[in-house]
Amino acid sequence: MRILIAQLNPIIGDLKGNTQLILQAIAQGRAMQADLVLFSELILTGYPPEDLVLNASFMRAVEEQLQEIIQATADIAVIIGLPRRAFLKNQRTVLFNSAAFIHDQQFLDYSDKILLPTYDVFDEKRYFQEGEKAKVWSLHGVRFAVTICEDIWQHTGVQACTYTHNPIEKLKQQAFSFVLNLSASPYSVGKFAKRVEAFANVSRFLETPIVMCNQVGGNDSLLFDGRSFLLDSQGNIRACAKAFVEDDLIIEIEPFISFSHAVIEQKEDWSSLYQALVMGTRDYFRKQGLKKACFGLSGGIDSALVACIVKEALGAEQVLALYMPSRYSSIESSRDALQLAQNLEIIFQQISIESIFESYLSLLKPIFANTKEDVTEENIQARIRATLLMAMANKFGYVVVCTGNKSELALGYSTLYGDMAGGLALLGDITKQQVYGLARWINRKKEIIPLYIIERSPSAELRDNQKDSDTLPDYSLLDSILVAYLEENRSMEWMADQFDCSKDVIQDIIKRIHANEYKRRQAPPVLRVSEKAFGVGRRHPIVQRWV
Amino acid sequence: MRILIAQLNPIIGDLKGNTQLILQAIAQGRAMQADLVLFSELILTGYPPEDLVLNASFMRAVEEQLQEIIQATADIAVIIGLPRRAFLKNQRTVLFNSAAFIHDQQFLDYSDKILLPTYDVFDEKRYFQEGEKAKVWSLHGVRFAVTICEDIWQHTGVQACTYTHNPIEKLKQQAFSFVLNLSASPYSVGKFAKRVEAFANVSRFLETPIVMCNQVGGNDSLLFDGRSFLLDSQGNIRACAKAFVEDDLIIEIEPFISFSHAVIEQKEDWSSLYQALVMGTRDYFRKQGLKKACFGLSGGIDSALVACIVKEALGAEQVLALYMPSRYSSIESSRDALQLAQNLEIIFQQISIESIFESYLSLLKPIFANTKEDVTEENIQARIRATLLMAMANKFGYVVVCTGNKSELALGYSTLYGDMAGGLALLGDITKQQVYGLARWINRKKEIIPLYIIERSPSAELRDNQKDSDTLPDYSLLDSILVAYLEENRSMEWMADQFDCSKDVIQDIIKRIHANEYKRRQAPPVLRVSEKAFGVGRRHPIVQRWV
Repeated sequence: MRILIAQLNPIIGDLKGNTQLILQAIAQGRAMQADLVLFSELILTGYPPEDLVLNASFMRAVEEQLQEIIQATADIAVIIGLPRRAFLKNQRTVLFNSAAFIHDQQFLDYSDKILLPTYDVFDEKRYFQEGEKAKVWSLHGVRFAVTICEDIWQHTGVQACTYTHNPIEKLKQQAFSFVLNLSASPYSVGKFAKRVEAFANVSRFLETPIVMCNQVGGNDSLLFDGRSFLLDSQGNIRACAKAFVEDDLIIEIEPFISFSHAVIEQKEDWSSLYQALVMGTRDYFRKQGLKKACFGLSGGIDSALVACIVKEALGAEQVLALYMPSRYSSIESSRDALQLAQNLEIIFQQISIESIFESYLSLLKPIFANTKEDVTEENIQARIRATLLMAMANKFGYVVVCTGNKSELALGYSTLYGDMAGGLALLGDITKQQVYGLARWINRKKEIIPLYIIERSPSAELRDNQKDSDTLPDYSLLDSILVAYLEENRSMEWMADQFDCSKDVIQDIIKRIHANEYKRRQAPPVLRVSEKAFGVGRRHPIVQRWV
Repeated sequence: MRILIAQLNPIIGDLKGNTQLILQAIAQGRAMQADLVLFSELILTGYPPEDLVLNASFMRAVEEQLQEIIQATADIAVIIGLPRRAFLKNQRTVLFNSAAFIHDQQFLDYSDKILLPTYDVFDEKRYFQEGEKAKVWSLHGVRFAVTICEDIWQHTGVQACTYTHNPIEKLKQQAFSFVLNLSASPYSVGKFAKRVEAFANVSRFLETPIVMCNQVGGNDSLLFDGRSFLLDSQGNIRACAKAFVEDDLIIEIEPFISFSHAVIEQKEDWSSLYQALVMGTRDYFRKQGLKKACFGLSGGIDSALVACIVKEALGAEQVLALYMPSRYSSIESSRDALQLAQNLEIIFQQISIESIFESYLSLLKPIFANTKEDVTEENIQARIRATLLMAMANKFGYVVVCTGNKSELALGYSTLYGDMAGGLALLGDITKQQVYGLARWINRKKEIIPLYIIERSPSAELRDNQKDSDTLPDYSLLDSILVAYLEENRSMEWMADQFDCSKDVIQDIIKRIHANEYKRRQAPPVLRVSEKAFGVGRRHPIVQRWV
């Protein structure tokens, strides 16, 4: 059987546009003599559609599009992910996260997702009912089992799950030639290897090949890496679609295995992290019909990295770097900001904030009489810069992107309504260590980011001789603690032992993380690249006394 | 049997502090010769504890506190809500939302919540496993059934539910004298009547009295109104604890019914809405150890209402009203702002934004050459005001509260990092119509809010002769559409028919609601007083093409 794995990048809620992508893929499948075209989970709505599925008119529109797709399946079979309604006896409506099986203009059956992830960024039990069991369908006399994303993950303990049943074990009692899986499995660093491990365990357990079609593209915070694949019954990866872009992968699976692409080596390196950020940025703009970005270029490393990513995502001519010096800005910052903008060929503009800063200081002088300079004056500078960036955005149609990183966001080392301002926090899930790693990787062939930017001590330049290290622990320790606490849920004892530091230091960091929940609640969405990003996947009270 | 209903106001995660509240209530119960002290759902952690329960050290601390509580129950019984861990065979841990039954220093049993709300603001399936069935326990030979909040709501169709089983129906087959319910049922306008209706249906169905203990107090966005009650077996309300404050309610229930309080009439009027906002504001500050609030007093109605609420919540001497006029501010605004501050005896300070505004305009003049004045210049003014408020907050320890209402937030008629700035949006779930209703109610005995503030046409005063009606539909139509669309999920056809307006007008409003998702994502938490507030209860993608 010849299968086209259609790895597509849908726009959330764009039912007509997504249907066009689907119809093109079906036509492509027909042209390539495929028997079956396999799509990803919820491809018709895009994943995650969130509360849109609770809207009856949205679900009616989904059903209408399905009819259009059914009409387009003459002489070909299609398995497509979409939400479906079912009507209970008491007139109430329930929803399932389903796969529809269509062949030669006939709708044949639905198979419903059984295990509904409801943790981290996932809220599926908010919307969907659980399916009963994975179905086995047949086409041209060949039988295959159908699963949806999480249904597979439960089996092998690659991920901590608390489901009380295991649909893969039940499949063991049935006969079929291979397993299909429709996924919307988001990217994070190291996820691909885990995904292959989870699926390989299942293919070995069931002793059949597995064909997985994953979503690709960025939807708000969530980044999908694609990399749809075919595993043989020994769990070996035999074919793999491209990462971070749409792709068509043709495979032959029964009675033998062959495929259109060579096995693509899937490295996890700085390059893939960089690609993920570029894709997420590009899709955030493109899917909203936005074109131009601006940001504050400071001469520091975070904004330098943002400049590189945004240029790659949108094109140099769409990017405005605003250098906004104050009395505290160093000559090196000015020199390096300009040099970087020249290296990248992005638009560079310099506006001094001094005159406005002076206006604030003189207006507030009588009110602030007999007080000391403190963070107040620092924040005013950051907020002037945000106001200028937003003015450029309002007047000329730019979208401001935020330059803060995860380490800053964690400890609140940033100004609310100041450097935290922007539509998207590209680096909001990137630790300071990763910022350095990416910057060095960008410079691997030639010096794009001026070397001094990478080598200088980090400083916000909001007062004389300020250094990040005045108020923050060493970034390498800080980042290790952040990963251990936020992503790995490690205990205080474990961290103190592992990082050879006092519990007081760790306790102080944890306190600062929780004390800054109120700031992060007003942060822009971040591009998620770890197993635990700030944002919808981490839900903590602002008002609390645990920490 | 004599029962003390302990209606308490816990702080999220304050395990030691909440334990103290619990121990005091047990002592109080003993003093009042109660047989049993009944607490609310998750009283030990506060509701909702969110991701804190995923932390193993947090759950260990819960278990330690439970031991302390057990020790305090000599000669008295206690039923208390808390999260509990259970350990599966495969070494994994699952959590239940439980009631613990303790008597005379002995832990007797757990009863687990069966129906786990996972909609709107509720995420219980993210954390908890479902209990199997409602338990029947006995004390001094009297048998009673135990339920937790949602377990009751499912039964009667007061609320749309999609649960596939009904724990109340199963209880029908068992014998007991009354039903206990531990609740954390949040306030919204009209909710009390619905709550009584839901519980009354159950008491009539089971033909027994019901005793319900509800949480009280504000936790971030969620407001709990208390009003714990006793219903007799005909569904009549026989005793009711106070609204919006802690209360002890002693009832005798078996073999006869009597109670300590007279039945307190529970009106749903402007007074209760006002009390809810005051409680939410007060708890947001008090539970964080914050004391002082500041905000921009504009001479308009929204900031006037905020002034009244914040004064009531924190005391006049803790409240700073900053009047920040520009060239566009009217004489009436100045006059009325000052008059209101005098009426309320709050601190009043005037700072003109003109000099700073001038600095921005002259700095940007060359860059904005050949462009027209537009929303850019309006936003600069709003952002200067936010920067000044935040400077006062940073320098003197105020917390900025936001003055925007739900109607503005819905349509994005507000400036991000400008008038949207603040730690808490008191009025973020209050429509403009409700703002007027509350203002008139405040003036019911004497003119606290200067009449002209209520009677003038609303204006942001960000350009000459600006009126809200220049860019917004009439507020009464707008608010009706907001309620119908956001809270009631009405169709376009229904709204066009009901409000006698064109579909184009409605479509435009709906488009603006969705187009401003990006702004609201960065809004402060709102105090939730409707069935659908902006914030965690409404989850919509920013990047989407459905609307």
